[in-house]
Amino acid sequence: MLNFELLKTDPDSHARRATLTLNHGKVQTPIFMPVGTYGTVKGVMPRSLEEMGAQIILGNTFHLWMRPGLDVMQSFGGLHQFEKWDKPILTDSGGFQVWSLGAMRKISEEGVKFASPVNGDKLFLTPEVSMQIQTILNSDIVMQFDECTPYDTKGHITTEAEARVSMELSLRWAKRCQAEFTRLQNPNALFGIVQGGMYENLREESLAALVDMDFPGYAIGGVSVGEPKEEMLHIMGHTPHRLPANKPRYLMGVGTPEDLVQGVADGVDMFDCVMPTRNARNGTLFTRFGDLKMRNARHKSDPQPIDPSCTCHACAGTSGVSWNDGGREGFSRAYLHHLDRCGEMLGPMLTTIHNLHYYLNLMREIREALDAGTFTEFRARFKSDRARGV
Amino acid sequence: MLNFELLKTDPDSHARRATLTLNHGKVQTPIFMPVGTYGTVKGVMPRSLEEMGAQIILGNTFHLWMRPGLDVMQSFGGLHQFEKWDKPILTDSGGFQVWSLGAMRKISEEGVKFASPVNGDKLFLTPEVSMQIQTILNSDIVMQFDECTPYDTKGHITTEAEARVSMELSLRWAKRCQAEFTRLQNPNALFGIVQGGMYENLREESLAALVDMDFPGYAIGGVSVGEPKEEMLHIMGHTPHRLPANKPRYLMGVGTPEDLVQGVADGVDMFDCVMPTRNARNGTLFTRFGDLKMRNARHKSDPQPIDPSCTCHACAGTSGVSWNDGGREGFSRAYLHHLDRCGEMLGPMLTTIHNLHYYLNLMREIREALDAGTFTEFRARFKSDRARGV
Repeated sequence: MLNFELLKTDPDSHARRATLTLNHGKVQTPIFMPVGTYGTVKGVMPRSLEEMGAQIILGNTFHLWMRPGLDVMQSFGGLHQFEKWDKPILTDSGGFQVWSLGAMRKISEEGVKFASPVNGDKLFLTPEVSMQIQTILNSDIVMQFDECTPYDTKGHITTEAEARVSMELSLRWAKRCQAEFTRLQNPNALFGIVQGGMYENLREESLAALVDMDFPGYAIGGVSVGEPKEEMLHIMGHTPHRLPANKPRYLMGVGTPEDLVQGVADGVDMFDCVMPTRNARNGTLFTRFGDLKMRNARHKSDPQPIDPSCTCHACAGTSGVSWNDGGREGFSRAYLHHLDRCGEMLGPMLTTIHNLHYYLNLMREIREALDAGTFTEFRARFKSDRARGV
Repeated sequence: MLNFELLKTDPDSHARRATLTLNHGKVQTPIFMPVGTYGTVKGVMPRSLEEMGAQIILGNTFHLWMRPGLDVMQSFGGLHQFEKWDKPILTDSGGFQVWSLGAMRKISEEGVKFASPVNGDKLFLTPEVSMQIQTILNSDIVMQFDECTPYDTKGHITTEAEARVSMELSLRWAKRCQAEFTRLQNPNALFGIVQGGMYENLREESLAALVDMDFPGYAIGGVSVGEPKEEMLHIMGHTPHRLPANKPRYLMGVGTPEDLVQGVADGVDMFDCVMPTRNARNGTLFTRFGDLKMRNARHKSDPQPIDPSCTCHACAGTSGVSWNDGGREGFSRAYLHHLDRCGEMLGPMLTTIHNLHYYLNLMREIREALDAGTFTEFRARFKSDRARGV
């Protein structure tokens, strides 16, 4: 099931506040969804995600199909029980991952043939198989199997004709997904994905055809695939607000904090990205006043937390669990710098909590601003704060 | 400061229950101390250690001297504030680590010359320098700088004459440590370390000389250094109970759960070992009914937690933090097997919590049995339980 209740729209932009109800609970939008590829958001306990206010997380169909495999997933009755996460889950279709296999896969009308990168088994991923796998995973939001149109292939920028062929294939696959999803009596919600590359007319054609199929929600795919920033912003400004106002809109794989704020203004309700978790492991930390490179030697003795105004467990030391001494402040930049230098696991554990908290808190602030009718002021303050430098 | 209050002694063995009071708080003994080499118990948040009931943790003088270095340690006023652990800390002397450098170090009466494995700097670790570093770390228990007598060197078993030379050097260093510790007006407690290899008479000589120096606590070093198990058990049966009854006794670097139970019976109050944390990362998990190899394929679909009777966060899901659904059980063996196979950080995060909880809980059960006067029964049940197999 899926219910989308629009609570408020911003008069100065396409931004909206809504409540999305799924089989495993309610999600307040706009929302950022942490990515849990292999059934775990890298380096974070489920309880920490709950403390941080994560409402919905992602799983990757392709990865979970490879490991642990469908037999294990079936025996657990799906991904929720396996990974101990009882709030909503969204799974992708596996399309992006098989597409990323490059020369190792072969795309036809029927689907994608490829060799398992884990054990070499010859596998065939089709719209029907993707629906079958996602039904076993029992994710609250199932994504249609699509072809992610590349921005370029070895320097050759995808032409309009090529983008059309790809987009039309995705549309035919969308129909097959819908039929299989219905046949399987999947009780969750299937989203269609708008493709069309960087071409407005193709995006509009894709969107119109998908709207005709009447999905309970829509995603915008094929952005954040190597295109110049202005091309991405162009599509963000073009497509989301053209989608039906009474259904959720999900911008796949985006992005920086600035992209999220812009995306909300463009009418997007849902985002996912590996950036907060991956950057945490690489020592790039997000803060209200800009990004911090934890590996920089200037942090060697710095007693400050990552962001003195942040309330995450890494910065404040008290998120969700009471310490014995209550008022103790968080971990210092010097300590995090040291942990990174020594390759200690606690480093990425703490920085991942910080970065995810930053993203989730940013979306919370956006929702509060939308509720209060102050989103325009919020955007201005966000921009000047981030430009200040940390 | 150090105060040692003996609460109870076991009539059937050398076991004792006591309360050890240090500058950062009280420790109920017998106790296991998790090892936090680089200022972090690998893979565990300080708050998780608190939840598990850790009362005192270790830090490694040598490692912390190399990274982050003494300037950073000094600016934080010691290790507690740097690593955000406000209960007691014990630091080793650095002796074991420089000894482990093998050909890269040169031992003389004065101390040990070596090249920093981090940046090649030529360094000189002496009893005085070790005291100076540990004073900067502000650890609650400071260990004397000693030479760890090897069991063998490339197959040559240390002779009594060689063990004597080494033990006597450690005694002279003990005196220098005591003088420097006093000169520095270190407000914490300095422990002497009994050496003497596998030779009872040398152990007795070392012990008598150290007792004459009147340390507030004593350790037994030079065990668990590659000797056959029966040699270790022989020294454990010989030395601990000969130490002064009114002072704490610390058996360094030991050991398996069986070793801990035996060590308590032999009169030991304090233990440390990397086994629970290292084994967790390598997939060997301790349980009441024996050890579990998490990498074994038979766990692939097993829905059971590591140990259904265990109350740790990995097994019970509820340690210290309430989940939204309260009664939810812990993570399955299948999930932990999967995380290990995928190299996901959450695997060692959860298994480390489990193994440390096992060790800390074992010591809690030992203390309860000593309090109740049922230690003999406890030992019998422990032995039969562990032999049952998991």
